Amino acid sequence: MQTYEFDTLILGGGPAGFSAGLYASRGGVSTALIDISMLGGQPSNYLELENYPGFAKIGGFDLMEKFEQHADMFGLQKFPMQEIEIIDLVSQPKVIKTKTDEFHAKTVIIATGAKPMKLCIPGEEEFIGRGVSYCAVCDGAFYKDKVIAVVGGGNSAVEEAVYLTKFASKVYIIHRRDELRADKIIQQRAFANDKIEIIWDSCVTEIKGDKTVNSIILKNAKNGESSSISVDGIFPYIGICPNIDKFSGQIAQDSKGFILTDETMKTSIDGVYAVGDVRNTPLRQVITAASDGAIGAVHSVKYIETLKEVKV
Amino acid sequence: MQTYEFDTLILGGGPAGFSAGLYASRGGVSTALIDISMLGGQPSNYLELENYPGFAKIGGFDLMEKFEQHADMFGLQKFPMQEIEIIDLVSQPKVIKTKTDEFHAKTVIIATGAKPMKLCIPGEEEFIGRGVSYCAVCDGAFYKDKVIAVVGGGNSAVEEAVYLTKFASKVYIIHRRDELRADKIIQQRAFANDKIEIIWDSCVTEIKGDKTVNSIILKNAKNGESSSISVDGIFPYIGICPNIDKFSGQIAQDSKGFILTDETMKTSIDGVYAVGDVRNTPLRQVITAASDGAIGAVHSVKYIETLKEVKV
Repeated sequence: MQTYEFDTLILGGGPAGFSAGLYASRGGVSTALIDISMLGGQPSNYLELENYPGFAKIGGFDLMEKFEQHADMFGLQKFPMQEIEIIDLVSQPKVIKTKTDEFHAKTVIIATGAKPMKLCIPGEEEFIGRGVSYCAVCDGAFYKDKVIAVVGGGNSAVEEAVYLTKFASKVYIIHRRDELRADKIIQQRAFANDKIEIIWDSCVTEIKGDKTVNSIILKNAKNGESSSISVDGIFPYIGICPNIDKFSGQIAQDSKGFILTDETMKTSIDGVYAVGDVRNTPLRQVITAASDGAIGAVHSVKYIETLKEVKV
Repeated sequence: MQTYEFDTLILGGGPAGFSAGLYASRGGVSTALIDISMLGGQPSNYLELENYPGFAKIGGFDLMEKFEQHADMFGLQKFPMQEIEIIDLVSQPKVIKTKTDEFHAKTVIIATGAKPMKLCIPGEEEFIGRGVSYCAVCDGAFYKDKVIAVVGGGNSAVEEAVYLTKFASKVYIIHRRDELRADKIIQQRAFANDKIEIIWDSCVTEIKGDKTVNSIILKNAKNGESSSISVDGIFPYIGICPNIDKFSGQIAQDSKGFILTDETMKTSIDGVYAVGDVRNTPLRQVITAASDGAIGAVHSVKYIETLKEVKV
């Protein structure tokens, strides 16, 4: 167990964390980044990205390697494989104890991300990035004139199904109940769209394919019968969860657990910032996460400056 | 005079505009971008950028070329050299008349940027990017152990002077009056900082140098005497103005003229978004402008979807 002292500690090594690391280090404060596993965050698992401005086509792993090397240039210290055990965000310095080390920092930038809720069915993990996607804005354009299934009945599922009709020739919405949970106005958009067919009372039980997805197996919840439909892609939209296990309750969150921030990325606790997917953000993309990281880091640097003042 | 119809019209071809163009085009709506001059926006004039995550070092012009080519891939239509004469943001479709053409669009994304107020003195234009900078966060790191002058007495000038002491060996604040306009707490930070020296009652009248800046000429406002001090860089912080000549008054703005938006980049007018430096943003960087563009474009695409609904 070693104890480290830094000006700023960043939790999470995805796009938001690395961008915060770049801006904080370049801003002249000593900065470290820890991650529960290997560095790179969610994009590391993406086969290809084509919507981070400036890189027309790039593998997710390659882009995150560039982010990491960029932050390295300014002296960001990195500690992968650090599982947080105890965290005290209110004290000054703030204290984060992991299974192996202890970190003290004047400011903490939370960039732990979020994860889409999974269907947990055969074929789902196997075909991620090859027909299984959790992000219509990211991957919709890859499905021009293809057939897609969206799973879910809430606002996100129905809105994204409508969005996907811009590309797809047909979009199934597969919902386990006999009515949608989405707002009425959003439901109407789906009902009015010729490309959308809703399959009621059904769960997806398996995703099948060869190199990429080619069909899904459905089970009717009322009569128990199974059926198969041909699709080129499946977008589960059954929810997204922020990675906030360790600090839930210490910090202001919305009803779904996302951390609330102001426009400077400051949370309800002085000196604590939240950036990227973990916060209550209007869009979850690499570009928005990276921007959040920059904003949070610049304001964190300014906050550290104020700590030098003599308290009256 | 030709008339064009698009789903979305973007005003301004800098990082925010191109990112919006990428996301809107890729989002399946017909999209055009117009600019009053050549495309590329402010960064085109930057010799080198080292804080757009993913590009450790890149010329500003080169980065903007990559942004442009990236948006081209998805079919963004571009119209440079379009000076706006009349703009009606409230009608549907919205109408923008330029000196040569007329554009109709369901949504408008304003990405016209902002410009730092200039000192308008000899040497200023000549040494931009070679000792004259208007952005401490962008360029501070280039001035390690150097001597810098900051011009101005407001919050930005004093805050950025304090920020620059992280890098510089000495920072002069040059102010034309005998007291600062900045908030007291910010003033105190400057007074308490050993690296900062305030030169009162003085204007900068000339910037001198060889390949880069090496001195500035000051004139004392009280006794009229001139003097010279050696500096490696000068940061004028006398204000920043949004480029909003043509739509001022149509749209909600803050006291300095920056366009007010919600977190989805929506302005006070339905179907009109503002992104990047022109809006009331907490940080003005390429990464934040690009993020704004993505957020505004995605919400603009969703808004266009709602226009298809039959009005009751």
